[in-house]
Amino acid sequence: MTKKEEMHALLGAARAAARRLAVASTAEKNAALTALAAGLRADAGEILAANARDVGAARAAGKSAALVDRLTLNAKRLEEMAGAVEEVVVLPDPIGEIYDLKIRPNGLRVGRMRLPLGVVGIIFESRPNVVIDAAALCLKSGNAAVLRGGSEAAHSNRALGAALGRALAAAGLPATAAQVIDDPDRELVLHLVQARGLVDVLIPRGGESLIGFVAANATVPLIYHAKGVCHVYVDADADLAKALPIVMNAKVQRPGVCNAMETLLVHRDVAPHFLPEAAQALRAAGVELRGCERARAIAPYMAAADESDWSAEYLDLILAVRVVDDMDGAIAHIARYGSDHTEAIITENYTRAGRFLREVQSSCVLVNASTRFNDGGELGLGAEIGISTTKLHAYGPMGLAELTAAKFVVFGAGQIRG
Amino acid sequence: MTKKEEMHALLGAARAAARRLAVASTAEKNAALTALAAGLRADAGEILAANARDVGAARAAGKSAALVDRLTLNAKRLEEMAGAVEEVVVLPDPIGEIYDLKIRPNGLRVGRMRLPLGVVGIIFESRPNVVIDAAALCLKSGNAAVLRGGSEAAHSNRALGAALGRALAAAGLPATAAQVIDDPDRELVLHLVQARGLVDVLIPRGGESLIGFVAANATVPLIYHAKGVCHVYVDADADLAKALPIVMNAKVQRPGVCNAMETLLVHRDVAPHFLPEAAQALRAAGVELRGCERARAIAPYMAAADESDWSAEYLDLILAVRVVDDMDGAIAHIARYGSDHTEAIITENYTRAGRFLREVQSSCVLVNASTRFNDGGELGLGAEIGISTTKLHAYGPMGLAELTAAKFVVFGAGQIRG
Repeated sequence: MTKKEEMHALLGAARAAARRLAVASTAEKNAALTALAAGLRADAGEILAANARDVGAARAAGKSAALVDRLTLNAKRLEEMAGAVEEVVVLPDPIGEIYDLKIRPNGLRVGRMRLPLGVVGIIFESRPNVVIDAAALCLKSGNAAVLRGGSEAAHSNRALGAALGRALAAAGLPATAAQVIDDPDRELVLHLVQARGLVDVLIPRGGESLIGFVAANATVPLIYHAKGVCHVYVDADADLAKALPIVMNAKVQRPGVCNAMETLLVHRDVAPHFLPEAAQALRAAGVELRGCERARAIAPYMAAADESDWSAEYLDLILAVRVVDDMDGAIAHIARYGSDHTEAIITENYTRAGRFLREVQSSCVLVNASTRFNDGGELGLGAEIGISTTKLHAYGPMGLAELTAAKFVVFGAGQIRG
Repeated sequence: MTKKEEMHALLGAARAAARRLAVASTAEKNAALTALAAGLRADAGEILAANARDVGAARAAGKSAALVDRLTLNAKRLEEMAGAVEEVVVLPDPIGEIYDLKIRPNGLRVGRMRLPLGVVGIIFESRPNVVIDAAALCLKSGNAAVLRGGSEAAHSNRALGAALGRALAAAGLPATAAQVIDDPDRELVLHLVQARGLVDVLIPRGGESLIGFVAANATVPLIYHAKGVCHVYVDADADLAKALPIVMNAKVQRPGVCNAMETLLVHRDVAPHFLPEAAQALRAAGVELRGCERARAIAPYMAAADESDWSAEYLDLILAVRVVDDMDGAIAHIARYGSDHTEAIITENYTRAGRFLREVQSSCVLVNASTRFNDGGELGLGAEIGISTTKLHAYGPMGLAELTAAKFVVFGAGQIRG
């Protein structure tokens, strides 16, 4: 078999499993998830041994400490994975839900019923927990999952895939309902992203290089976010007692994630009061500041920002700072340099709060709250398989509902069309 | 300029217009639509003269009567187009609508706000009314429209595009908010379907050849239906007094459209009673019947269906007929040969009605009603820009809401993440 035939055979098995999963009962799906959580605990020794091989190889290859950390599993992280699966068990099953039921003048009752998308492909990098998190959400939403992780986690992912297969079998569901691809050949990824008609949606999760490769080559539908260049705009009418903690939280609470602030925009009227205090607190937290000329006139210890800073996703303790003339200037800056991910305004002004919410086109727009809230759990979705900035199908964090489509269901009494 | 540069310049202008449209008020958009309806009436002479050139050329080229009919405009059809635009004026503006507003434990109020998709590309064939129908729906939903019709309608489409431009200008909106591409060069279509990042979604509308070309070459997101192989299943517990009018309506009321029935499935227990009566009525209406062996044993005047009949979209007065053992046989037939478009069950059985609705994965599933109801107007969407069987983003008829995305909007009071 060629690599292409191999991938198509795997996806064909996924499609067959998807037909079974689409009509699986909630009890069957929950039984598989419960067995999975138990299996992760029971097979901890095997999984951690496989992971130790990956971690050892990554260390020997001189990989960065950050990558080794993302790759590493231990008893605590494995227990967190099992706990996350149990949280999915208690989430409501979206499949079969009927909503928007309305009665037409001719008596037809028309509603929408959620159904699975079918086969969901996930391409991700070094975190092995994605195997379990993504498979659990796909399973609960009735989708077959095809999971392709980074080659540096191949042993870990294979062990987690085996646990998945055992849990599915224990619940009487096909083992091909969640398949892990552990062959490191990148050609397989190409056949996965070009399997139009076999993959219903592909969700790549990772850095710009992975996303770039997938976006440039894919012919199957994609949902993803390329990067998170998130802004906080401190308005002329900001309550500075709210602004400072929000700015600090958005930048320093977890700087390496996509919903952390990368650029701070400050209205020129409050900049002289706010910037010195904010800059002091940020520097005390270890943040390197890169300001526009007007910002540096107020806080001369800032480095000079250049054009590339406005579109940089630092994922680090670095912050670009720009003074703007007004909210329109902030909105124009965000439209030009932003990534449609997450933007916040800090203001007590009713009209501008409303305009900012309406006019900023990003996947999550906040008033007087930290950008760090753009997260499925924090926004009430229960769990998250990723964040979309692609607008089509989903925009922002994606939970179980975003892994479904909705068909029209019609309850008739013999109606015909005139 | 190369053709590619030409297309990218056009799409760049569309993107700029989209930013303006995204914040246009309902009054501005309705003013443009009202001006458009008035303009179609005022410019009727110019539009009909342009159309006469297209119709003359099509006749001279020996095009089919069906194509010439689809291409032809007259005073009545133009008035219908203007009326359709006025119907869009009275539909609620979806943009800015906030729904699903919930309060999180930390006091954050989290909702979803509808926003436009951005730039919507429409590729269609000979019907010039699509220019106006699609542009009106895109405009009302705040999207810039790029419209590419068939070369046989180039003069008509150019005249309609001019009317669109005048209406937009009259309302103070950019003329590039709705652009008609009237250059017949097919290379332009290729650059349109591959303009990733410039086109937010492409909706091809037409026959299998057009859809096939677009699907094979596109790198931008697509929403479409390839074909409509729609089924009616007459169950063992069908009320035959409902079944016969539904079968007749689904097949003969308008056989050339995508939601017309193409295959009739009949439970073996009712086939001896139902098939002779149904076959007689269908034949009286001019329908050619192609049956399986069991159907022909009951109604021997049917032609013999072969394998290709089960997946045929006749769009004509032809019907494939198959006798099945039970509902599971009907569902398996639909899963194998269907096109995910529209399927109906005729039954009085509560359990089987529920199972059919749940288990059939098509975009519209009906109990005791004609397949002809899978239509945006009939299902209560107010209007329709097309029907999707691609599941992603929309499934079934697409109205104004399906031309929007929804961002998360968060009303905070200073919350930060712990």
